[in-house]
Parts: sequence; structure tokens; C-alpha cells
Amino acid sequence: MDLLKERIVKDGQVEGSEILKVDSFLNHQIDVELFNEIGKEFKRLYDQEEITKILTIEASGIGIACIVAQYFNVPVVFAKKTESRNLDKETYESEVYSFTKQKSYRIRVSKKYLNEKDKILVIDDFLANGKAAFGLKDIIDQSGATLKGIGIIIEKTFQPGGKVLREQGIRLDSLARVKEMKDGQVIFE
Amino acid sequence: MDLLKERIVKDGQVEGSEILKVDSFLNHQIDVELFNEIGKEFKRLYDQEEITKILTIEASGIGIACIVAQYFNVPVVFAKKTESRNLDKETYESEVYSFTKQKSYRIRVSKKYLNEKDKILVIDDFLANGKAAFGLKDIIDQSGATLKGIGIIIEKTFQPGGKVLREQGIRLDSLARVKEMKDGQVIFE
Repeated sequence: MDLLKERIVKDGQVEGSEILKVDSFLNHQIDVELFNEIGKEFKRLYDQEEITKILTIEASGIGIACIVAQYFNVPVVFAKKTESRNLDKETYESEVYSFTKQKSYRIRVSKKYLNEKDKILVIDDFLANGKAAFGLKDIIDQSGATLKGIGIIIEKTFQPGGKVLREQGIRLDSLARVKEMKDGQVIFE
Repeated sequence: MDLLKERIVKDGQVEGSEILKVDSFLNHQIDVELFNEIGKEFKRLYDQEEITKILTIEASGIGIACIVAQYFNVPVVFAKKTESRNLDKETYESEVYSFTKQKSYRIRVSKKYLNEKDKILVIDDFLANGKAAFGLKDIIDQSGATLKGIGIIIEKTFQPGGKVLREQGIRLDSLARVKEMKDGQVIFE
């Protein structure tokens, strides 16, 4: 998606060879107009699929998921990372390992909001090692719902998540695929 | 806002006298169509104000803030609760006490995304004791920006946050004001 790539080149900040900061438009300050263009693109890509729900994970996935959901006229469900006294006792749960924090955390979705009739589009901002995506897939599998595809804004293809997901036959659509970062520059696939 | 109150009566779950669960449409599963009606209502209420940014707090504020922001054509900035290696070193910070978790947590906004020219509408899902709202106000004050108002989906008026904010002359617009909960019923102001 050219508009997105141009924005990453213009406003993304590369730190070393692994960190791409896009907090001026994606995960701290949010450019809602750009998110709408992203929403239209995912709708174009999944126009032939019947989608009943958008699934994402808190926190920064929620904004993009809500904007995307408007184009599908479906609800968003977001997996919770934190313990909440207001969450149902009956949940699907999975473990996600965070390389950033070097520890695992638990994600949970109430059993009320996913079932075997659901056809799910997973939406998230980043894909790197894919641990969050696999956690969400695990929860979808537990619920009996069908994973129709995973829509990602920025995939770091030098990390293994995308490759492993595709090898498992999972449909994955990443709007910007970053192959390498060096000398402060982003190189796309 | 009648549509919202009707939805709370229909789908909200009252637990005891203090907990109102609205996770079927607001903070776990999200009814994006309802959020759009809420967005239109906040635009109607703030149509005379020049708003430059919507400020909220992760996690469940992000979805509603993004939808509302579409009606103002402005970016969203969300305060981060968690430590992140990708967050700027230069941040405005405040402490927020959580009655649910009985401890304080720190919220942070990068100095890049708030400045003295900004006219801020704060959007959040719930207002009870108002600690998150005061934390966001503290951050706005540090940045020199102007707080134009606080837009809340559900205010629990039997808790003190709204009263204290209004006494300080802060504009507060809550779309559903819950006076009391008893015998599983919600009573609005």
C-alpha cells in the first residue's frame, strides 16, 4: 500500500536494525484518516470473504480494528492482556511470549464473543515474531470459529512470524513489508 | 443519549451496586455502529469548539476515541500505561490511582504530540472516581494545551469524579449518567 509506505518513509524512525518507531501516526498518535485508507484496503482484499467479526489484541490494535470494522459492518472483539474483575469467568485463553519484555503474558477472550459460526479477520498493527498472532489463532481454534485471514499494517519480514504463518496455510495480508532497516533507512520487500 | 441508555438497559449486566458490565458492546466486544452514533453526538455537543486533538488512555478508550475523531477530522493521542521501549524519553507523566487494582500506575504522553496550541477533547468510556480524567488533565496542563472538555460514554454519578471535575469548571459531557444500580437494574439521572 503505497500511501502507507510513503508515510513510513516520511515519518517512521529507524533505531538500529530492528526498531521502527511509527508513533507519530500509528501507535501513540493516530492518523485516523490514514486508518480509514487502511480500512478500505482490507475491505478490498477481503471483499469476497464473509467476515462476521474483527479480532484484535489490546492496546494499539483496538484503534485500527475499530476503523477497519466499519468497512465490514461487523463488531470488534479485542483480547484482553490484563486481569480485569469485569471479565467473564468463562474465557478462551492463550499464552503469548513477548520478546520485548522477555516474558509471557496471558490473553483472554470471553466465550460469549466467539463461537463456531464466526468467520474471523484478525487485525493488528505489527507482525514480527508472530507470537500475538499465534495466540489469537489458538483462541479462535478453541472457539471453533474460522480464521479467514490476518491483516497486518507493518510486517517485519526479517523476523519469522509471517513465514511461519504462511507455511501453516494461514492467509496473511501485510500492507507494508519491511525487509531490512539500516543506516536509518527502511527497505521494503 | 437515548440509544445508548436503551442499550445499557438491554445488554448491560449489573453486579451488586457498583459494577456495570457493558462488555458485549463497549469494552470487550465493540459495537462500532453504536460508537459512530456516539461520535456524532460528541460532534454535535462540541460543534462550536475548535478541537485539534482527541486525547484518551489505553486500552478501551482507544476504540471510541478513533471513531469520535473521524467526526472532528483530528488525530487521536492515547496516553500509555505500560512501559514501552519504543516510547520517547521526553514525556509528560502523571500518576493515576486505580480503585479496582488498589494501586497507582503511571501514564505517559510523548512531548511531541501535545503542545500549547492544542485544544483537547478528552474521550473515555467510563467516569467513576475520575482519577484517569485528572491524570489526563494534569498531562494537558503540563503541555500548555487547552482542555476544551471531557466526553464520557457512561458516568457513574454515585461516585465522585464528575462532581469534582464540574466543581473545577471543567466541561464534562456524559452520554449516560447512572445514578444508582440495585436489584440488577440501572437507574439513570
